[in-house]
Amino acid sequence: MRDRFHEELDAVHDQVVELAVLVTNAIGRATTAVVSGDLGAAEEVISQDAVIDAAREDLEARVVAVMACQQPVATDLRTLVATLRICVDLERMGRLARHIAEIARMRCPGVPLPPVLRPAIEEMGRVAQQIATKMRQVLETNDPQAAAELGFDDDAMDDVHRSMFQQMTDDAWPHGMAAAVDLTLLNRYYERFADHAVNVAGRVIFLATGAHAGM
Amino acid sequence: MRDRFHEELDAVHDQVVELAVLVTNAIGRATTAVVSGDLGAAEEVISQDAVIDAAREDLEARVVAVMACQQPVATDLRTLVATLRICVDLERMGRLARHIAEIARMRCPGVPLPPVLRPAIEEMGRVAQQIATKMRQVLETNDPQAAAELGFDDDAMDDVHRSMFQQMTDDAWPHGMAAAVDLTLLNRYYERFADHAVNVAGRVIFLATGAHAGM
Repeated sequence: MRDRFHEELDAVHDQVVELAVLVTNAIGRATTAVVSGDLGAAEEVISQDAVIDAAREDLEARVVAVMACQQPVATDLRTLVATLRICVDLERMGRLARHIAEIARMRCPGVPLPPVLRPAIEEMGRVAQQIATKMRQVLETNDPQAAAELGFDDDAMDDVHRSMFQQMTDDAWPHGMAAAVDLTLLNRYYERFADHAVNVAGRVIFLATGAHAGM
Repeated sequence: MRDRFHEELDAVHDQVVELAVLVTNAIGRATTAVVSGDLGAAEEVISQDAVIDAAREDLEARVVAVMACQQPVATDLRTLVATLRICVDLERMGRLARHIAEIARMRCPGVPLPPVLRPAIEEMGRVAQQIATKMRQVLETNDPQAAAELGFDDDAMDDVHRSMFQQMTDDAWPHGMAAAVDLTLLNRYYERFADHAVNVAGRVIFLATGAHAGM
């Protein structure tokens, strides 16, 4: 039987995974909102952001309570401190999904971007969700292999990102300034979302193995 | 005479203020780089980012060591946990200054943006540095009044931000796509820089007074 302290650490761990599930869902729905001009999906992501914030606050309070009551040292303390940083990353991922949904909402009822650009946004969304899903798996399993794959996905995101900027700064851009601003921000939001997921996985692997996961 | 524990808390506090000074300098130099096309200033900000990261790592290690050795509870524990979050904000501010400098470097030896847009960038830079300076004062003094002023400065930043987007999405934008992308990203970087400064001040005031500083 596990002692009280380790039960509490397990509960913290479960809450982190739940938060990861929330942000993974959020980025998927945000992409639907922005690609299909789906106002319902946009509103859902925006209101869900408050749920993510509340879950993050709750989790942080729990971590601080465990620190205060159990006075952990060494590995347990480092794990709890890493959890506090992971909370910041996950909250930020939720906020970035919200920003994407806000772009969709601002442009509704039309779709926010010229149809010809939708495949690229869909691709960024697909990669972002894949990265978030692998991040969640890393949180669940501490698997360094999944963490390394996540680094490759992040490279794929950077490639989409670069090719889209290339397309945009091409002199022949015919889609107008508002679309250019939206697209620049969407690029940035997806890129940052992926960065945070890579950070989270890196912290988990660092705790599990003491080594950076080549990311 | 203060005991060992409080000496350590004072040392942590001093290091936080030092980190705040570093990021305040970084944003000032980054603005010079981007407005004047000053390659030397850009390189300086970019290399200084590693110094900021190292200072942040050092500070975090110190906080965790204090937690492990002193087993703080209640207010002291909350202060240390808040310090960990402040570290994340300050590191991010340094990174955003670096991103601004990278835009300047990418465009050197020319200036990165059409001269007509320089006053707006200068204004964002000025407000960002003012916000960072007040954030540092809040860290030094725990003064809720300075924190409240910082909220007003952040509103000023939002105003510059909005008016620039207005100008950009105007159909008559004559400056080309590359400038539009740069300007959108610069806007975003300054805005995020200010957000992080407001977060830091908010955390300090929350610790000092138990109340959010109306931000």
